[in-house]
This record gives sequence, structure tokens and C-alpha cells, in this order.
Amino acid sequence: MPKLDLSTAPVRTGSAYPPPHDALMAGRSSLRLGALGGLTQFGVNLVTLQPGAMSALRHWHAEEDEFVMVTEGACVLIEDAGETPMRAGDCAAFPAGVADGHHLVNRSDAPARFLVVGTRSPREIATYSDIDMMVRREDGRDRFTRKDGRPLATAGEGKNG
Amino acid sequence: MPKLDLSTAPVRTGSAYPPPHDALMAGRSSLRLGALGGLTQFGVNLVTLQPGAMSALRHWHAEEDEFVMVTEGACVLIEDAGETPMRAGDCAAFPAGVADGHHLVNRSDAPARFLVVGTRSPREIATYSDIDMMVRREDGRDRFTRKDGRPLATAGEGKNG
Repeated sequence: MPKLDLSTAPVRTGSAYPPPHDALMAGRSSLRLGALGGLTQFGVNLVTLQPGAMSALRHWHAEEDEFVMVTEGACVLIEDAGETPMRAGDCAAFPAGVADGHHLVNRSDAPARFLVVGTRSPREIATYSDIDMMVRREDGRDRFTRKDGRPLATAGEGKNG
Repeated sequence: MPKLDLSTAPVRTGSAYPPPHDALMAGRSSLRLGALGGLTQFGVNLVTLQPGAMSALRHWHAEEDEFVMVTEGACVLIEDAGETPMRAGDCAAFPAGVADGHHLVNRSDAPARFLVVGTRSPREIATYSDIDMMVRREDGRDRFTRKDGRPLATAGEGKNG
């Protein structure tokens, strides 16, 4: 029966970002609906943002289309050009390769929820707009580096180290 | 600004099905949100079913994953094993290649709405569960035939013609 029992969906919390960026993802959790339903070609996640939480560090994808629909509450879409309020029923689309970083931030005092769909490409590069970081996926592994490919600065290393 | 203005979305009504099956699709209309947002890797449609309308003839896809979330009202998911009520917030996933035909039917007295996402594969075969019809997509063209590949029966032709 392909109707999904959301109470059995894998829940993802925390973050794959290296420190200190991982700490910025507190208050975000995702139900992995596509995985629950056996889909492999695109991911579908139902994401809950507690007040103050964000969907991701602001980023754009080189290879993967992305689509979001807000399903509950209100949040703010932030892009290069500024901020756009998003409420339940509002949708946004982010075609692969458009170099305009985006994320959703919940500045309200209630939880917000959105459905997000993204192609599952075997190779991908995501670029983070506001910090010197990118991530490259090859052979199923994500590798975070600076934008010039060098290793990320580690704790105790200077900004220009 | 990737937030979509749904009032400008291309609207699809009618049906690509050959007669007499096209007439069964009355009461269905779709906002083509993925196309509006410039997405090419998967389609995203916000479909409205008037009372009595159906999403499609019951079918399954050989190549394309599919996902639906009901966003307003109530409808019934019909598959080989039977019927499942679906309400706003309910989701269903249909992995490519699983030979269990599905569709959504609105048996309520109010409009129902659902978001549907499907991979856009260059080649596809969809098989219709309840009638002798399939559709094959090659080179961007959809060709409807019987399941053995012969032309569909035309009006005036006997059932076994």
C-alpha cells in the first residue's frame, strides 16, 4: 500500500556540516518520505523548522533541481536579492545550475513545515553563498572543502590560515 | 525570485488520452508548477479534482518514480489491493517499475487538491491496469497502443477487432 505511514518515516536530525556550521542546524528535523516510499530518483523530505531554525546554510546546486512547498506555518526565503515571506501553500523552485543561494528561515514563534523535493544525482556540487565552503558528491560520498578545493580551516586556525 | 506566483502557472485541462478515454478526465485541472519554475528533471503539478473527477486512468510507470501529497479535501487512492482514503497531509509514493496501477478519485462533494511529483525520463512506458492500453514515450513523443503493441481499437470497431 503506497500510502505512507508518516509515523514510521526515518527521521533525520543534526547536520552533515563540519563544525562549527553543524551547530547552526539545531531545531531542524526531517521525515524522509521518499526513502520511506522506496523512491530513488528524487528525495522527498517533510522538514520541520522550530522557531529560529533554518533549512540549510544558504546554498545552490550545480546538478540537482529543487522544489519546496510550505505546508504549515510561515518562514522566510532568503536569496541574493533579499527576503520573501512564505506561508502555507507557497511554493518555490530552484533549477539546477542557477548560482543564487537560497534557504528558508523560521523567524516566527511557531513551528514551520515544508515539503522539499530534490533530484538524487550521483554527482553534485553545492556551493554555500555566505561562507567559504562547498561540497562535492562523488561515488556516494560528500566531501566538504573551501571553494578553491583546499581543506576547510580547522578550529584554532586563523581566518586566513 | 524563485517563489512561484501560482496565478501565472500554466494550467492544463483536458487529456492526452485517445477517445473515448479522454472524456473520463473531465473535472481535472493542473497547475504546472515545475514548468513555471524552470525545472526539467522532475515535473511538479498541483492538481485539482472536482467532485467525481479522477487523477488519471489507473496506471503504473516503468521508469519514473512518482510521489503525491494531498493538500486540500479528500480523495480515494485505488490500487490492485483496494481503496485507501487520503486526506490533506496524506502522502503516497510509487517507485518506478512496481506493477501496481494507481489513481486518485474524488468521491467527495467538494474539490480535492494534491501535489504530484514525477521524474521526467526521456523514455517511459506507462501501463493502464483496467483497460487494454499502454503508452510509450520515445524522442519526446507519447504513443498509445494496446498492450501487445497493436493500434488501439477505433470507434465502430468491435471489442475483439
